[in-house]
Amino acid sequence: MNLNQNIAIYPGTFDPITNGHIDIIQRALPLFDRVIITLAVNSSKKPLFSVEERMDMISESIKQLEGAEVVQFSGLVVDYGRKVGAKAMIRGLRAVSDFEYEFQIALMNRKLWNKMDTVFLMPDEKYTYLSSRIVREVARHGGEIEYFVPEYVNSKLREKFKKFNA
Amino acid sequence: MNLNQNIAIYPGTFDPITNGHIDIIQRALPLFDRVIITLAVNSSKKPLFSVEERMDMISESIKQLEGAEVVQFSGLVVDYGRKVGAKAMIRGLRAVSDFEYEFQIALMNRKLWNKMDTVFLMPDEKYTYLSSRIVREVARHGGEIEYFVPEYVNSKLREKFKKFNA
Amino acid sequence: MNLNQNIAIYPGTFDPITNGHIDIIQRALPLFDRVIITLAVNSSKKPLFSVEERMDMISESIKQLEGAEVVQFSGLVVDYGRKVGAKAMIRGLRAVSDFEYEFQIALMNRKLWNKMDTVFLMPDEKYTYLSSRIVREVARHGGEIEYFVPEYVNSKLREKFKKFNA
Amino acid sequence: MNLNQNIAIYPGTFDPITNGHIDIIQRALPLFDRVIITLAVNSSKKPLFSVEERMDMISESIKQLEGAEVVQFSGLVVDYGRKVGAKAMIRGLRAVSDFEYEFQIALMNRKLWNKMDTVFLMPDEKYTYLSSRIVREVARHGGEIEYFVPEYVNSKLREKFKKFNA
Amino acid sequence: MNLNQNIAIYPGTFDPITNGHIDIIQRALPLFDRVIITLAVNSSKKPLFSVEERMDMISESIKQLEGAEVVQFSGLVVDYGRKVGAKAMIRGLRAVSDFEYEFQIALMNRKLWNKMDTVFLMPDEKYTYLSSRIVREVARHGGEIEYFVPEYVNSKLREKFKKFNA
Amino acid sequence: MNLNQNIAIYPGTFDPITNGHIDIIQRALPLFDRVIITLAVNSSKKPLFSVEERMDMISESIKQLEGAEVVQFSGLVVDYGRKVGAKAMIRGLRAVSDFEYEFQIALMNRKLWNKMDTVFLMPDEKYTYLSSRIVREVARHGGEIEYFVPEYVNSKLREKFKKFNA
Repeated sequence: MNLNQNIAIYPGTFDPITNGHIDIIQRALPLFDRVIITLAVNSSKKPLFSVEERMDMISESIKQLEGAEVVQFSGLVVDYGRKVGAKAMIRGLRAVSDFEYEFQIALMNRKLWNKMDTVFLMPDEKYTYLSSRIVREVARHGGEIEYFVPEYVNSKLREKFKKFNA
Repeated sequence: MNLNQNIAIYPGTFDPITNGHIDIIQRALPLFDRVIITLAVNSSKKPLFSVEERMDMISESIKQLEGAEVVQFSGLVVDYGRKVGAKAMIRGLRAVSDFEYEFQIALMNRKLWNKMDTVFLMPDEKYTYLSSRIVREVARHGGEIEYFVPEYVNSKLREKFKKFNA
Repeated sequence: MNLNQNIAIYPGTFDPITNGHIDIIQRALPLFDRVIITLAVNSSKKPLFSVEERMDMISESIKQLEGAEVVQFSGLVVDYGRKVGAKAMIRGLRAVSDFEYEFQIALMNRKLWNKMDTVFLMPDEKYTYLSSRIVREVARHGGEIEYFVPEYVNSKLREKFKKFNA
Repeated sequence: MNLNQNIAIYPGTFDPITNGHIDIIQRALPLFDRVIITLAVNSSKKPLFSVEERMDMISESIKQLEGAEVVQFSGLVVDYGRKVGAKAMIRGLRAVSDFEYEFQIALMNRKLWNKMDTVFLMPDEKYTYLSSRIVREVARHGGEIEYFVPEYVNSKLREKFKKFNA
Repeated sequence: MNLNQNIAIYPGTFDPITNGHIDIIQRALPLFDRVIITLAVNSSKKPLFSVEERMDMISESIKQLEGAEVVQFSGLVVDYGRKVGAKAMIRGLRAVSDFEYEFQIALMNRKLWNKMDTVFLMPDEKYTYLSSRIVREVARHGGEIEYFVPEYVNSKLREKFKKFNA
Repeated sequence: MNLNQNIAIYPGTFDPITNGHIDIIQRALPLFDRVIITLAVNSSKKPLFSVEERMDMISESIKQLEGAEVVQFSGLVVDYGRKVGAKAMIRGLRAVSDFEYEFQIALMNRKLWNKMDTVFLMPDEKYTYLSSRIVREVARHGGEIEYFVPEYVNSKLREKFKKFNA
């Protein structure tokens, strides 16, 4: 752990990573030396993609973003942040409903570990409507999603639903 | 498909149709030549009423509303709208939480098919509190719901929960 | 007044008209035979542009939009709507704060005259941030606004603030 | 000051009192021995009606509500509540925008005097759209307001605007 | 049932009771003769703690709060309130999302039984972030929760997750 | 301008600076090499304190915060940020109403100059209720504000209102 480095973590389930996530990462990169995408592996919700598939899609999507990296972790996100000496946790804010839930989480995290603060960034307004859930829903029904996710993620989603629908 | 007709679709799960839905349909009818209630049959949520039961209750509830009709469809709602040449998709807005979710859906739908736009109508304020979920919950506990749903739907709900509680 | 026509009014102060307003007008036009932009002349707020200047800028901005027209009126907007036999009043919804204020106005208008209902349309997400007030503020400080208003309005704003700053 | 009494204050500017205010008072009365309507006389906003006129309209409107009374006060509302030994300050909540502003005020008041807590009541949903401001605006343009205010207030509003428009 | 008593009910699932709930109870106690915590036993959601465990934790947490008591009930909360002659139903409001859902429930309850009104209280701002769900989530991952729940509840949560993690 | 420095600006009117503002500055300091408080001198609103008084109070309040500095500027905040090479503009977010207005401003600023992004930080929840406006209002009525502002600001507010009330 290098105390002089300005490290941020960007936690999420990324099921799958979307262009909205990548937009947030690109906005965080100029502000921090390292942005560590932290994939939560113990969410209670049953994901569409396995941890391995999600790690693979994230790695592929950020390979040209210098300073960005991805890890998986289980447990409390503040414990991971503490371990790597992160000064900030990045969250994207799109809408009021995001805002309230994120604030509750951020206030709780601050109680648990007050050396890392939550930093909210605003995605490009063209991603206001975008979420992993809505991408999964559209892909499931065969809708066009190439505008919403990286090319590699698009191909994985098509593969996934081809299996389902076969 | 008649290009000169001003057609709107009104999609939903209608589990069951309530007086709030009917209020929205009545507000839409003066603005459009046809209002097609489109019942989504492939929702991931397990409904209380089968597709057949819901179709039956909707048909019964709109039989005196000239210009209103009901169909069932599976897949993306924009694909259905495109097929019938609808110019508008009707949505009722009751509250801020509706607003945000509806906006995300509407923005996504606009990306998928931009010849049909979402039109938001506001129900009578006496239906602000009303949702199919809350009606199911009250009926399940034997509460009075005649104020909230058409008579026919009321009888079907009582039947349904009599079976459950027997 | 032609009862067979599907007429909508789109009231506002338009101080000045922005690309966001024009986007809403363009979305309303396929749904109605006529969209009458109704400029309120008796607002309590002191406007930047006179009624004549605003009428001029609106006329110029809609001259290629078939079905759109502009009038000025004083008094209650529902009285104007009643006079011309409008079935709908168009409002653009951008954000939650819009939503609540608009709903209060719409509910009041419905009490005053229930033959015209309020129809909410959603602007392109690139206009989420846009309001006449913010355009005036940016122009006042010499910021670039050509992206936000029609070319003609841009020139009028520059003229206006040149006088102020001279 | 009688410590055994359950006293609530209901502060506001009441310019003028509406049916929505009266609805809230009626909901508060079963819960408290006395509900003291406290008219703030030092608001920075210039009111339509003088303090005397507003006191008169409130008195007239509550004369059949046992347990309700009205006083005028200047200064901090918590200081008035402390003086009369009020346990609660009543506020009506209609909408999200009310909610946030009211919460800020309530939190501040709690810091200033923590023996009186703010109690939020919800008006009948038919008053969701109603505010003194909107009533003034409609009356100013000659719209029908008899549905929104007591008969006596209605006559005073008509008188007021007759003078203005003469 | 004593008609002269000022009784309030405070319904919920309390899975588990938190310091935020206790804060609300303490704010309600000065306003009412009795505050009856009513534990809903027939919620559709599968709870972490059984009804018996939750009753036990609530009883333990309120034993020094004079006027507070706890009961379990099944069915509609308004039916329980009617039975005991409650004049008010207490709800804590923390955030906008609370607000909307709570308002829908309160409006429906008012339709079902209009002799009991919903009274909203605001918890201390240090509990803004707090919910039973977030407490369960943090405890599940071994985070410190002693700041958020009574000591007794803390010990029960640790026990529960020791079993799970063993 | 040093391109290697990580500079943030924190714009506002600070009429006067509160403990909530200082909390935000303290949260920003670990993330940036310099945090430049930028006092807007050309706001349309008539302030309580002159620019000189506000500069003085800010300077006094941050003198022990290493990395924090204050400047005054007129014009567009993005132009100032561009001039000093700031990578971020800091904004505090307390509530939903903040959120929406701040988002509109942030989106507009991004259009005007996309090399500086807006970073939202969340104050301590004990400052949720706090704003310069509410501080002025309480001080005006002689309420205790020592909890809400630095000691020096407190004395200036008392002085200011002593003059007004004399």
